[in-house]
Amino acid sequence: MARAVPPLLTDLYQFTMAYGYWKGGRQREPAEFELFFREPPFRGGFTLFFGLHECLLFLRGFGFGGEDIEYLESVLPSSVEKAFFDFLRTVDASEVTLSSVPEGSVVFAKVPLLKVRGPLLVVQLLETTLLCLVNYASLVATNAARFREAAGPDKKLLELGLRRAQGPNGGLSASKYSYMGGFDYTSNALAGKLCGIPVAGTVAHSYVTSFSSLEEVSPRTLRPANGKDPTVDIISLAKAWLARVCSLFQVPINQVNCGELAAFISYSIAFPHNFLVLVDTYSVMRSGIPNFCAVALALQELGFRALGIRLDSGNLAKQSVEIRCIFRSCAAHFGIPWFENLSIAVSNNISEQSLLELTAQENEINVIGVGTNLVTCLTQPSLGCVYKLVQVKRCPRMKVSEDPEKMTLPGSKKVYRVFDSSDHPVLDLMALEEEPPLQVGQEVESFVLGTNKMEKVTAGAVEVLHRVYFRDGQICERLPSIATIRSHAQTSLKKLSPIHRRLHEPQPYKVAVTEKLHLLIDSLRTNNHLQ
Amino acid sequence: MARAVPPLLTDLYQFTMAYGYWKGGRQREPAEFELFFREPPFRGGFTLFFGLHECLLFLRGFGFGGEDIEYLESVLPSSVEKAFFDFLRTVDASEVTLSSVPEGSVVFAKVPLLKVRGPLLVVQLLETTLLCLVNYASLVATNAARFREAAGPDKKLLELGLRRAQGPNGGLSASKYSYMGGFDYTSNALAGKLCGIPVAGTVAHSYVTSFSSLEEVSPRTLRPANGKDPTVDIISLAKAWLARVCSLFQVPINQVNCGELAAFISYSIAFPHNFLVLVDTYSVMRSGIPNFCAVALALQELGFRALGIRLDSGNLAKQSVEIRCIFRSCAAHFGIPWFENLSIAVSNNISEQSLLELTAQENEINVIGVGTNLVTCLTQPSLGCVYKLVQVKRCPRMKVSEDPEKMTLPGSKKVYRVFDSSDHPVLDLMALEEEPPLQVGQEVESFVLGTNKMEKVTAGAVEVLHRVYFRDGQICERLPSIATIRSHAQTSLKKLSPIHRRLHEPQPYKVAVTEKLHLLIDSLRTNNHLQ
Repeated sequence: MARAVPPLLTDLYQFTMAYGYWKGGRQREPAEFELFFREPPFRGGFTLFFGLHECLLFLRGFGFGGEDIEYLESVLPSSVEKAFFDFLRTVDASEVTLSSVPEGSVVFAKVPLLKVRGPLLVVQLLETTLLCLVNYASLVATNAARFREAAGPDKKLLELGLRRAQGPNGGLSASKYSYMGGFDYTSNALAGKLCGIPVAGTVAHSYVTSFSSLEEVSPRTLRPANGKDPTVDIISLAKAWLARVCSLFQVPINQVNCGELAAFISYSIAFPHNFLVLVDTYSVMRSGIPNFCAVALALQELGFRALGIRLDSGNLAKQSVEIRCIFRSCAAHFGIPWFENLSIAVSNNISEQSLLELTAQENEINVIGVGTNLVTCLTQPSLGCVYKLVQVKRCPRMKVSEDPEKMTLPGSKKVYRVFDSSDHPVLDLMALEEEPPLQVGQEVESFVLGTNKMEKVTAGAVEVLHRVYFRDGQICERLPSIATIRSHAQTSLKKLSPIHRRLHEPQPYKVAVTEKLHLLIDSLRTNNHLQ
Repeated sequence: MARAVPPLLTDLYQFTMAYGYWKGGRQREPAEFELFFREPPFRGGFTLFFGLHECLLFLRGFGFGGEDIEYLESVLPSSVEKAFFDFLRTVDASEVTLSSVPEGSVVFAKVPLLKVRGPLLVVQLLETTLLCLVNYASLVATNAARFREAAGPDKKLLELGLRRAQGPNGGLSASKYSYMGGFDYTSNALAGKLCGIPVAGTVAHSYVTSFSSLEEVSPRTLRPANGKDPTVDIISLAKAWLARVCSLFQVPINQVNCGELAAFISYSIAFPHNFLVLVDTYSVMRSGIPNFCAVALALQELGFRALGIRLDSGNLAKQSVEIRCIFRSCAAHFGIPWFENLSIAVSNNISEQSLLELTAQENEINVIGVGTNLVTCLTQPSLGCVYKLVQVKRCPRMKVSEDPEKMTLPGSKKVYRVFDSSDHPVLDLMALEEEPPLQVGQEVESFVLGTNKMEKVTAGAVEVLHRVYFRDGQICERLPSIATIRSHAQTSLKKLSPIHRRLHEPQPYKVAVTEKLHLLIDSLRTNNHLQ
């Protein structure tokens, strides 16, 4: 994870353009690109920015090895001069300056996330890789934050999307950034090892179906929790408890699946302190739950506290209520108060929508596992960041497309986040670099993007959004830990007014440009024709 | 790409289950899992199977290093015995046998893609990683094949999704498997280098916007293609051609963007033999096309043939027709026949649907670039393969869920693909391993899944679907090259009847079980209760 991405992981056209710049002697012209997105994902009001740390590692290690150069020589037209490849061998990011919003911040459409300054040829070459590193990281973290909003603060969220991600590294990124966006655990052991994310998981259906009878259980005894008393025949004990449970809940004991009981007993012998099993391999209420209760009660008799159950099918909210009811009855009937607080974990293709429906219903769920819809970002699988040239040799540049959505904002900018009296951010204001700094209390004319309206804004508290993170070939800010970034994201989100934070039909956050920047845009839009 | 995936890239519960098996002394019980999907993606009639090569590399290198074991010790409950970790150190895939459908084959729902046999504990541990390697590879290749179907055989397809994929490795997998599924090129240089995929790409908007005047063009001369004649002032030449082009097409010359002309001239000097540029940075018909024609005609005067243009916005079909018309007029007016065959490449968030609409219209498009919707598989971002236990110690196993969709098919199986007299596959028939081999001409009773109907099938040509690819710790089949697999996929698809291959509302392909397997399913469904 901490390994930098190879610099050849980019689009070929970066090299053809680089040759064009080099051939024209422009390779060292000072240039600036901005990385931004045009619409917040998921029709939401907020986006979380992630991927900065990996961008910085990429910059630090940026440079082409001999094999890379040989490959490029083999695929570029033979008319490309040899001297260009010699030059490419010397290229690195030592003259690149990268300014960025801090990782984990709430960000909005059209505001640059990264500002990348340096020699034209070099900053051009960085485009695709930076996009690749920011796009998915920000998207999946934002998705995770939406799941967190939908679940509320109390339920634990477990990411388990590895098997459905875009291959191995897709899965690793998914786990890392889901955690950073607000999840509590991942099932992905490698992500746990590499990123220090708490890991979780117990059993799958295959463990349960691998048993077909109580004969298969071995060893057949368990030593009580105090470690001193003689071992006990756990099978007989569980069977005795099963009879009592079945009688209490009027479940026909001959319909309870014996392979499942064997699997649960076997797992309880392996993990007597951590007994949590999947109860829907066969019938939940006529087999899984009676079997679970029987084994948990047997464990209890030996001094162990079971943890709970997981459900992976059916109506999760309704079943959780029924199961909690069973747990309460056991607690009361057998005089074991903690039994009613057993954990109920659920999974089964949970989406943001189904999670909202789940939490709107009465439910007794404690842990929610989310896979496919989290990691693939089903409702919008791509953030769509772009990387656009805004300045060359101190002259602003702009793409004046016939498609107004594809126009860019020219010039090197300073971005201010303006807060209201409740400390909610209310406006991101983009000014040209050379404009005097925005002062608290100052009244400025601002043109809100997308509305074409001029508004006077009085700046309450003001924050400059970008910091320099990379300069002179070095990472020049101390990089926070994953846990710190995760908590910054939570704080950043909490600061946001609920009108922008709500999942459905949020009020659009205002992003504006100063009068001076507005005038520049107008003049470039009309005046860029053949002299 | 050829590096094997680390074995810790799996779900934690594989290790808790492994401990359960080990603790119960079951680690060496012979077991078999099947990897399959339950529904074809994109509501389609076919799926292409990919990922086998990477699965085999993973198996060959499978085993845990010291750091992996230390990490697992740190996260598993402290009650887990030390001897288990010592055992884990010795685990490898030397006793695993993997049978598979050949990579690139057309496959159908519920039919196993992989059959994985070996010691219970080991084959359980392989689950998540095998799923991760097959799921996305098969999904994106199938998506690519659908784009190919939609585009028809003549248009060239270019994959350019790196910046929108799930991070670096997601992008690499996307490029590799899009090519295998039927694309012609990728923009991803690393995929080109590692997998030998043809790469393509020329310029982005940033190259065009980096120029603002003809003053910036350097050098200002170009030597004719014969390499002997003296260099020519290409700027004056292009300007002269621009005047003629503008006059021919009645475009006001003062509305043509001079920065764009400068960019095109500069690019033509760098790539005189490979001149292909993006024409929609400003106005396509009032700037981009006149500028392109001017430079292409200037190049022609010097003996070079331009390649063509790319469009990245607007109505692509309509513009391509207008542009072809301009090219034809130039060809006729200036007496340059090849000019009418210049390549027109398009991109702009193309989806399967928009591609179908595009190709249904009159158009003059030669090359189509697809990014986001290809690599993220927008309409279904996950294939949803599962890995289910079908047999332990020669006894069939089955998951009998209350959700009938989640039931599994028990037992070790042999799968036959049955062909009709036109050599189209018409049925995949799953039999129990011990049943006598299906003979050509034989009539068998088969139960078609999903219909509950018995049908008599007379086997025409018959193919056994699976081959053993991994045994005794070794890959035991020669693995074909990427190009060979790609061509196998095309052949496999072409064999499929159009009723199954069509993109919309295909007729479902029949997947059936023999009477014997059907009876086994019935008996396991009803008879698995507490004795």
